[in-house]
Amino acid sequence: MSGAASGILQACMDCLPAGGAALHEPTFGGREREYLRECIDTGWVSSLGAFVNRFERDLERLTGAAHAIAVVNGTAALHLCVELAGVETGDEVLLPTLTFVATANAVSYCNAVPHFVDCDATTLGVDAVKLEQYLEHSADLRRDGCYNRATGRRIRALIVMHTFGNPAELDALVTLCRRFNLTLIEDAAEALGATYRGRPVGNHGLLSALSFNGNKIVTTGGGGALLTNDLALARRARHLSTTARLNTASGFEHDEVGYNYRLPNLNAALGCAQLEQFSDLLERKRALAERYRAAFVIVKEASFFSPVAHAGSNHWLNTCLLAQDDAGHRDEILKALNRHGIQARPAWTLMHHLPMYCDCPRMDLAVAESLERRIVNLPSSAHLMPAGGLQPERHLV
Amino acid sequence: MSGAASGILQACMDCLPAGGAALHEPTFGGREREYLRECIDTGWVSSLGAFVNRFERDLERLTGAAHAIAVVNGTAALHLCVELAGVETGDEVLLPTLTFVATANAVSYCNAVPHFVDCDATTLGVDAVKLEQYLEHSADLRRDGCYNRATGRRIRALIVMHTFGNPAELDALVTLCRRFNLTLIEDAAEALGATYRGRPVGNHGLLSALSFNGNKIVTTGGGGALLTNDLALARRARHLSTTARLNTASGFEHDEVGYNYRLPNLNAALGCAQLEQFSDLLERKRALAERYRAAFVIVKEASFFSPVAHAGSNHWLNTCLLAQDDAGHRDEILKALNRHGIQARPAWTLMHHLPMYCDCPRMDLAVAESLERRIVNLPSSAHLMPAGGLQPERHLV
Repeated sequence: MSGAASGILQACMDCLPAGGAALHEPTFGGREREYLRECIDTGWVSSLGAFVNRFERDLERLTGAAHAIAVVNGTAALHLCVELAGVETGDEVLLPTLTFVATANAVSYCNAVPHFVDCDATTLGVDAVKLEQYLEHSADLRRDGCYNRATGRRIRALIVMHTFGNPAELDALVTLCRRFNLTLIEDAAEALGATYRGRPVGNHGLLSALSFNGNKIVTTGGGGALLTNDLALARRARHLSTTARLNTASGFEHDEVGYNYRLPNLNAALGCAQLEQFSDLLERKRALAERYRAAFVIVKEASFFSPVAHAGSNHWLNTCLLAQDDAGHRDEILKALNRHGIQARPAWTLMHHLPMYCDCPRMDLAVAESLERRIVNLPSSAHLMPAGGLQPERHLV
Repeated sequence: MSGAASGILQACMDCLPAGGAALHEPTFGGREREYLRECIDTGWVSSLGAFVNRFERDLERLTGAAHAIAVVNGTAALHLCVELAGVETGDEVLLPTLTFVATANAVSYCNAVPHFVDCDATTLGVDAVKLEQYLEHSADLRRDGCYNRATGRRIRALIVMHTFGNPAELDALVTLCRRFNLTLIEDAAEALGATYRGRPVGNHGLLSALSFNGNKIVTTGGGGALLTNDLALARRARHLSTTARLNTASGFEHDEVGYNYRLPNLNAALGCAQLEQFSDLLERKRALAERYRAAFVIVKEASFFSPVAHAGSNHWLNTCLLAQDDAGHRDEILKALNRHGIQARPAWTLMHHLPMYCDCPRMDLAVAESLERRIVNLPSSAHLMPAGGLQPERHLV
């Protein structure tokens, strides 16, 4: 076994229960069973129901966004974000190549073209400085928007992704979007509870998407939400997510092509129970990250990833970054960890390496390519730490 | 109050509990609570889990289809059906104007054009004879398919819908599709358990869609399924519904633009509990329909809709059809029923009357237009009848 593999394996074994741990499992320690039972008792399981409304209000309080619209999953939320950003057939949308495929698919659903941008190794998110330089020499600002000089297509929006729950450099990205007349969308699918300069992410772009898939910090089974501070966009998101149905006497007037994207009450019930425990889940995940950080101090072949000082991670997926010289050991390390029951995974295959996106426009992607070779995600479930914080003895003092 | 309104009101009051009834509510009389609790206890709430697989196998047994793929809702199932039928950008797809908007939207999602066809008053479904005559004079059969002579676009598929759970005339429609080289898709969203010549619907076209929305005979909160007897299509449906992810070591290879359409295990758990009660639910709905049928015998201004002899309805939504002369009273009748707590509704607004579809190609739609003016749907929940069949005294004999 290489030094990298044995060092990382030892660090993980020091942090995790004997026998290992899954990558990310849900933690159900609250009123989940009770709220689900309530759905059956009342008969409200589908797209109308008190839990859907409550879940949305809970999300608004948590994120500070004026409006949350609960939908069937994060992909649906992203799709609505892209459509509501005014992206039209043939437009281009900038997005990181280091992301889950749903970010790019949401652009495809609008018949638009993903245009891949590079990441910053200090945030794992879009590199605003590099992107600005790229747009300066490859885009034209016209009266009606930003155009790709090479393809002639309009570049309508930028989607930034808060990778593994670590906020992208939002201030610089907001400024860049203003300068180039781009709509900023936050793909905050992984980042509920993460903050940037003290303010929750999902609240900095015009539109944002959250996910509550089973592997997220909070789950609804399957689910997602769109966030916005713009009332008109919120109304339209709600309208589009409910088949664009108008509130008329017949009940069957629809004024545009809409979607069946509303979150069922059953799933929202689970979400309400989960959000009641949110601060505890966040604290347990923070404590686990601290434990990893301490254990990795002595691993010279890899570093434990920490966000920049003004960014607060929600520690969704703990990440170790192999040293440049040890990138070649990644697969060996993954195998060694998994063999010991420590479920680890690499980063996503970069978008520009997937067959349906390999011909899309892109800038130099050297940093993302390096990161992709060096990222190893580690077990991150909240229940790996005791409830009520890492060090209960503190309360005993 | 008109004679029509008072006659129909009296018939409904004779069939329903004092105080009235909702249009369609779920009936939870089985292991719903237990199975939901099991999801929480095991931690399996999301897109993988034993209930998803079991729900699919249960649906296969029930429908006789070789393959069922559970998805987030009926709309997603329809979308996959249209895409898997090979419908491409700019193609036309024939579908009834009398349907829920999702049928037409599924075609739009594939950048194709709905082409509206008329219904038969004896089935409420697509009129095969009228459609055949229409295609004879308006379509060209070329080597590579059927073309609309007026628009020059290829007509790729026909979607038939089993309206309110009443089977369309499938034999004639299958023959018509063969003659005109059209792929037959069944929109069986409302028709789980309905039969045509003794064989379940959802099993006659190349691809079929089911819905388990809260108002359906069986609910998963939100949910749907695609059915097919074709193994290759089933595999592709499953692949497309799970982001087109390949089973590779990294786990993040995707080979085409896919969707996040998989049904969560939490919702499938509810579906499994519901399907255990299916024969009872069906029997109770049949009994309620019988009761309506008997009560409407003396109403001369309206008839209770019954399917043709070789078709077995699942009695999803009971339907009364106003006499031609009484169509003008429809809204007054709806108001009278609803005022008495009897939740009634008209048919959907016809697709060619909606603003986004009003310019689509269409044949003469006189029958659908007449039906739309005359349909009144009546309360239809299974729990309006006692469990174990209408006449328990039978068992006492």
